[in-house]
Amino acid sequence: MPQTILTVETRGQGLYEFTAEAAAFVRKAGLEAGLLTLFVRHTSCSLLVQENADPDVRRDLDQFFRRLVPPSDDPSMRWIVHTLEGPDDMPAHIKAALTQVSIGVPVMGRRLALGTWQGLYLFEHRDRPHRREIVPHLGP
Amino acid sequence: MPQTILTVETRGQGLYEFTAEAAAFVRKAGLEAGLLTLFVRHTSCSLLVQENADPDVRRDLDQFFRRLVPPSDDPSMRWIVHTLEGPDDMPAHIKAALTQVSIGVPVMGRRLALGTWQGLYLFEHRDRPHRREIVPHLGP
Amino acid sequence: MPQTILTVETRGQGLYEFTAEAAAFVRKAGLEAGLLTLFVRHTSCSLLVQENADPDVRRDLDQFFRRLVPPSDDPSMRWIVHTLEGPDDMPAHIKAALTQVSIGVPVMGRRLALGTWQGLYLFEHRDRPHRREIVPHLGP
Repeated sequence: MPQTILTVETRGQGLYEFTAEAAAFVRKAGLEAGLLTLFVRHTSCSLLVQENADPDVRRDLDQFFRRLVPPSDDPSMRWIVHTLEGPDDMPAHIKAALTQVSIGVPVMGRRLALGTWQGLYLFEHRDRPHRREIVPHLGP
Repeated sequence: MPQTILTVETRGQGLYEFTAEAAAFVRKAGLEAGLLTLFVRHTSCSLLVQENADPDVRRDLDQFFRRLVPPSDDPSMRWIVHTLEGPDDMPAHIKAALTQVSIGVPVMGRRLALGTWQGLYLFEHRDRPHRREIVPHLGP
Repeated sequence: MPQTILTVETRGQGLYEFTAEAAAFVRKAGLEAGLLTLFVRHTSCSLLVQENADPDVRRDLDQFFRRLVPPSDDPSMRWIVHTLEGPDDMPAHIKAALTQVSIGVPVMGRRLALGTWQGLYLFEHRDRPHRREIVPHLGP
């Protein structure tokens, strides 16, 4: 099965859609039915399948995670030890642990079997821009 | 590999077991060894593998998520913008992000390699009844 | 495809790395390209891909989950009903629900396509020692 790497350029915390890139990868492979597995090669960002209609959903999602896991210079997070790369460092690892590092999406009739409102997202948890790598694997 | 859609009818928030349906799908396929991947085609419900012995575990799980992510008309959630379909709308997306959209379960000796106490659940996050679709994919 | 069971012996809550065992399994199979799916056969521990450089990351991760989901004898958790096996019982199920029961890692050039800092971990949520089973499945 063909293997390559999808890249997503991020500019701070938030959700970045890559549904089109994943769909193009599947289309090119020409597999009638199978399974697309997506794996993100980082521990400070993660993968999400979420609503791609109202952009407020993505903003609210991002906001929830910022409130659940505040930066490590927040008074409530003083217990954090790993602050090496700044206040967004350890919260990024925590948010990644709370979401998914890999997602499997069936392929039916040469297309991703996503629901009507589902989109594939890279969830960036760091403040600074990053070039993120996702390994797509297409199996029978 | 055979592809179909499993449906789960829900009646409000909570866990709905579909282990028997998934097991029947695997049995019918007659594959000796392989991998069953389950993918849910929605962004306001999710998948869980959880204990199928004491029903209190499911009730407590549901309760935890209701407390961690209260309805958007709760004073603590006033920051939520996406309230289009009611106070259970955005919390449903958040709970889905905190759990899993896809799960892979190996098949050994024509059976799901689940642990003794493991069951497969659809975790419904909306209040109203829904007909939920899960795409099972069986690969070698 | 070869199927076996990897075991991880735990001694209380925390992260236990098993990257080497998973890599050895893939190496022995000799598959050039494919997908390794890992599935944990329990509902009170889970799987994580996390940073394997600074051990403080693992300690902080463990700490975050202990604070988000305190033991059921904590005043804030008095609503918990399932306390059968002690105060770490139900929180263990909740922490498992918040993380992952299965993870898919692509294999490229006979090696796991993990990022530079990524390690595979069994996240133990119980206080007492356990012998945990992970089913690795290698597919094309």
